[in-house]
Amino acid sequence: MDIKVSSQKDIDSLVINTIRFLSLDQVEKAKSGHPGMPLGASHVIYLIYDRFLKFNPKNPNWIDRDRFILSAGHASAMLYSTLYMFGYDITIEDLKQFRQLGSRTPGHPESWLTPGVEATTGPLGQGITNAVGMALAERYLASVFNKEGFPVIDHYTYALCSDGDLMEGISYEAAAFAGHQKLNKLTVIWDNNHISIDGDTKLAWSEDVLGRFEALGWEVFNVEDGYNLELVEETLRKAKQSDKPSFISVRTHIGYGSPLQDTAKVHGAPMGKEKAIETKRRAGWSTEEFFVPEEALNYSRRHIELGEEREREWSELFERYKREFPELASELERAFSKDWSTDWYKELPDFTEDMATRKASGKVLNILAKHIPTMIGGSADLSESNNTILKDYPELEANQPAGRNIHYGVREHSMGAIMNGMAYHGGVLPYGGTFLIFSDYMRPPIRLAAMSKLQVIYVFTHDSIGLGEDGPTHQPVEQLPSLRLIPNLCVIRPCDANEVKVAWKVAVSRKEGPTAIVLTRQSVPVLDRSMYPSEENLEKGAYVLKDTGDKPEVVLLASGSEVHVALKSAELLKENGIASRVVSFPSDFLFELQDDEYKVSVIPTEIKRIVAIEASKGNLWYKYVGRDGLIISMESFGKSAPGGALFEHFGFTAEAVVKKIKEKWF
Amino acid sequence: MDIKVSSQKDIDSLVINTIRFLSLDQVEKAKSGHPGMPLGASHVIYLIYDRFLKFNPKNPNWIDRDRFILSAGHASAMLYSTLYMFGYDITIEDLKQFRQLGSRTPGHPESWLTPGVEATTGPLGQGITNAVGMALAERYLASVFNKEGFPVIDHYTYALCSDGDLMEGISYEAAAFAGHQKLNKLTVIWDNNHISIDGDTKLAWSEDVLGRFEALGWEVFNVEDGYNLELVEETLRKAKQSDKPSFISVRTHIGYGSPLQDTAKVHGAPMGKEKAIETKRRAGWSTEEFFVPEEALNYSRRHIELGEEREREWSELFERYKREFPELASELERAFSKDWSTDWYKELPDFTEDMATRKASGKVLNILAKHIPTMIGGSADLSESNNTILKDYPELEANQPAGRNIHYGVREHSMGAIMNGMAYHGGVLPYGGTFLIFSDYMRPPIRLAAMSKLQVIYVFTHDSIGLGEDGPTHQPVEQLPSLRLIPNLCVIRPCDANEVKVAWKVAVSRKEGPTAIVLTRQSVPVLDRSMYPSEENLEKGAYVLKDTGDKPEVVLLASGSEVHVALKSAELLKENGIASRVVSFPSDFLFELQDDEYKVSVIPTEIKRIVAIEASKGNLWYKYVGRDGLIISMESFGKSAPGGALFEHFGFTAEAVVKKIKEKWF
Repeated sequence: MDIKVSSQKDIDSLVINTIRFLSLDQVEKAKSGHPGMPLGASHVIYLIYDRFLKFNPKNPNWIDRDRFILSAGHASAMLYSTLYMFGYDITIEDLKQFRQLGSRTPGHPESWLTPGVEATTGPLGQGITNAVGMALAERYLASVFNKEGFPVIDHYTYALCSDGDLMEGISYEAAAFAGHQKLNKLTVIWDNNHISIDGDTKLAWSEDVLGRFEALGWEVFNVEDGYNLELVEETLRKAKQSDKPSFISVRTHIGYGSPLQDTAKVHGAPMGKEKAIETKRRAGWSTEEFFVPEEALNYSRRHIELGEEREREWSELFERYKREFPELASELERAFSKDWSTDWYKELPDFTEDMATRKASGKVLNILAKHIPTMIGGSADLSESNNTILKDYPELEANQPAGRNIHYGVREHSMGAIMNGMAYHGGVLPYGGTFLIFSDYMRPPIRLAAMSKLQVIYVFTHDSIGLGEDGPTHQPVEQLPSLRLIPNLCVIRPCDANEVKVAWKVAVSRKEGPTAIVLTRQSVPVLDRSMYPSEENLEKGAYVLKDTGDKPEVVLLASGSEVHVALKSAELLKENGIASRVVSFPSDFLFELQDDEYKVSVIPTEIKRIVAIEASKGNLWYKYVGRDGLIISMESFGKSAPGGALFEHFGFTAEAVVKKIKEKWF
Repeated sequence: MDIKVSSQKDIDSLVINTIRFLSLDQVEKAKSGHPGMPLGASHVIYLIYDRFLKFNPKNPNWIDRDRFILSAGHASAMLYSTLYMFGYDITIEDLKQFRQLGSRTPGHPESWLTPGVEATTGPLGQGITNAVGMALAERYLASVFNKEGFPVIDHYTYALCSDGDLMEGISYEAAAFAGHQKLNKLTVIWDNNHISIDGDTKLAWSEDVLGRFEALGWEVFNVEDGYNLELVEETLRKAKQSDKPSFISVRTHIGYGSPLQDTAKVHGAPMGKEKAIETKRRAGWSTEEFFVPEEALNYSRRHIELGEEREREWSELFERYKREFPELASELERAFSKDWSTDWYKELPDFTEDMATRKASGKVLNILAKHIPTMIGGSADLSESNNTILKDYPELEANQPAGRNIHYGVREHSMGAIMNGMAYHGGVLPYGGTFLIFSDYMRPPIRLAAMSKLQVIYVFTHDSIGLGEDGPTHQPVEQLPSLRLIPNLCVIRPCDANEVKVAWKVAVSRKEGPTAIVLTRQSVPVLDRSMYPSEENLEKGAYVLKDTGDKPEVVLLASGSEVHVALKSAELLKENGIASRVVSFPSDFLFELQDDEYKVSVIPTEIKRIVAIEASKGNLWYKYVGRDGLIISMESFGKSAPGGALFEHFGFTAEAVVKKIKEKWF
């Protein structure tokens, strides 16, 4: 192959083709993957990295870097090729291991695995929404920490997305939110290639996408001549100047230059050796696999030096900032290292009054917020119900960017992914509330938070039929156990106001994954801890609350509001001459972290009569009660009626529990 | 109260106020509910029922009725008042029982409970999307069954929605789909009251909603003077003429006429007796509770006669149609009574070739489709992967409305709710496919299908780490057990091509709820049924596949692709001198419907060593294996690698299974 690089155009073309064909080779070697977008859109990612992105490939964690998110995660090969070319810690060997066990180049980008990957993407619509969260975190931190002459937080967020990203409802929610918030440092580029997996996007999609984004308050740009590099670059530059979030349509062709160009066939499967070679030949490219022209690498890797230089400049700025504003600087550093304060804990009251656990949560949150200045959050239009309002702080709005109360709107799904974006960005501790039932609307981002080890806190209130009249559409039945099934999601359902304190303590301490705090709508008794073991035991997931005799014959396990049913049941059993043990069991996640000795001390092997009481689907409790155990649970949907009437109707009373126990065993 | 009804205006006003104050009284009596929208939007629902809707209150199941869906289900009191006024089987006593245990007037509308309620709504965005599904079903059936002079299916669909409905991403997806499909007989009215639960919608929402709908291909109308009845009526009339779906913004005021007008306080809580009386006084209304002027009732209940007349006319038309087109007529009748054919079953091949269960599903589906002419469906942009294409039938498109292959686009959430809408409508049997992992995007409508007893069939392929290289973002781990937790959802995970046949048989026979068929991406062996019990046993949920000795010491339970791991494990155990039993366990839902005798015959109480093998989160299996059982499952997220390598890596091989069994018990 004859390489000439006499102009910028030549070198651009050389690096772009290197990215394209490295991606093609990855897919071909793995015999698996998506060649279409890399062939068609590599010039866009190239331009962003080469001309726009502020980054230091040798320190992908530099806090003031620009962020780039490949929302169309299926084009992962393109991202890995780009990261390799631009000097990140990715080798050709890594590229050759694309989609293989143990590699750093998995099928879809995984944030925890690959240097330079800002977000785990693939499930469509998530990445673009993460980008909104990142831009929001940037603006918040900039507003709080920057001082005149000290723009210590000052960066841009770019997302490259596909047709599919834009069809998913979550991306509409995110775009509406971003438009409302006027997140002007966000640029989304649409790889407008007219092809989705099923074929031409016209099969299912005929909207005016740009018109829609315009209606959402974005500045929109249409680059019809999508391979005109000057035009794309100029448009990206204009977008950067906008006072709104920017949306750029770049008309591309999937599988550009290949025999399968403009067909769905090239979207998600290797094209085969023959066609791959043909594609390279058409481009005048070497047919050598994983071929990297030295000139290309030399050019793109100058970003190593550039990046180090840029970070150095920033570090010098930050050193001066530190001297001028030592407290702010230290606060910022602590925030990015997730060094959240623990001072607040001693400030929490000992709750003595009966109250809904959601209410206790609101009180705790408000104390916490004073000590963790970058904890920001809100609710999907249920802030009062969820008790998520930080009373002493303003709303976070476009004209009030240092506010701390976020109104997500009725948009649970994007709330979840925006929180993920904020956690990816770092420096803030995001929390968000909705009714537990609507956790169903946001399962995809919850799962991605758990997978990507993001510290995000969910406040899920109205946790059972106890919420009452709103009825079965609003009463969670399967949501609590369904959340417990998500790996690395810590689910906690405290039984009273004091356990709520410890739940928050766990959530704030737990930095390697999300925590869901599940709370009642209705008031529940507060346990007098002079008579019961300390609420601190919540950290162990489950603990003995009470034995009503030396040799309990029955163990009652319960969580949340049902702990009080269990306590009453134990009293009633005692009146019937049956000694029992009551275990408060707020979190199987935390309990499973304990050693066997502790577990057996809570649920002794020798006691065979074990009962679980929880107003949710009961299946998960078999693990603890065994096949011969008794589970008092919700096996159907709920009903519309006052909460108390429903507890009675569905058998969550001491009388009903004891009756069942006696029928079964005594 | 002095009642004058000298003009149409007077009577309109009288009925509207009756609806408003009956709703207010319901909420006040229940001390729970949402008075704001009924006070502000009753004139809209009144106009629709009085001037537009074709209905027979005495037969809410008349198939050619117009459909009205209250997407803003929280305004249920308004719907109940309306149904009462217009002659449905709802009494004042029912209204007085609003939100009480056992009543027919629950907190949010429940389709199975209340005559005239077309869809279960409340979770926002669902109702408007159901309406899209209804309009789609109507157009499909009209296209297939209507003949010149015989418009036997010819009706309109109306949905009344709130700000919250429009903020939810699902409603964007549905609107994009409806615009693309040009569903011109659909009219959505937006109760544009500027207030959501958190306060002014401006807190979170500043988009140009009409501009957005226009971009989506809708005809949009803006009624600023929202209480001008003539104007609202005229606009509804124009909307009916449009060749696009219509979206009408009606500017209203939440809590109209009350002391709390235009505040969030009146959205979701009773205003208290004093304010309620004050509101009535301001309107010159009687303060008597549940007051219904005779003149109002007489007027609105003339629809009883009108409706009967209309249905009679239709019945006469249908009788003539029957004579002219007896086969079509009978087909239509059977379709609406869900009398799906069973003829197809004997046409299914005995599969003898190894294949992915998704592939077998595609083959079965294509045979089925010939026998069930109103079975229509598709996929969320994965039709080839999901094997959901009906090969002999065209696409269902705006210009091809009798097509049967629906391209939902990358819109799983709305796909779920559109299917629900079609099932509510009746006459069609909807199915829809996506990857199992993306069932997470559509949990809210799956739940509502289960709750509302809708026959909907989900085809969930790529069911485990077996899908391979796409990696953890695409590999279901918790999805299978999470779906199993939804009450009244029948989940089936067949082990081979022949079990797939029976899974479809169950799904088509099961009319009182949805069925999810969970299928592999990768090829699996087909069991030679001359050596194993019949696949028909799948109907029992679990059955003995093989005993490797007279007295099995170990029972191996498995589903789907892991059944083959279990069979190999049993062979290996036998070589080790250990007799075992292999149980194919495709559906705990179906198994739990069996009697104890059968259950014990499959998993004998006397065998204590029980093993479950399933490449999903394992917690649900404790029910069957007990606390001392062995569960071989996925307790973490997956990895990106070829499927075979992952099965080995995560221990789903006979060698690994036997090793664990021996370590534990032998």
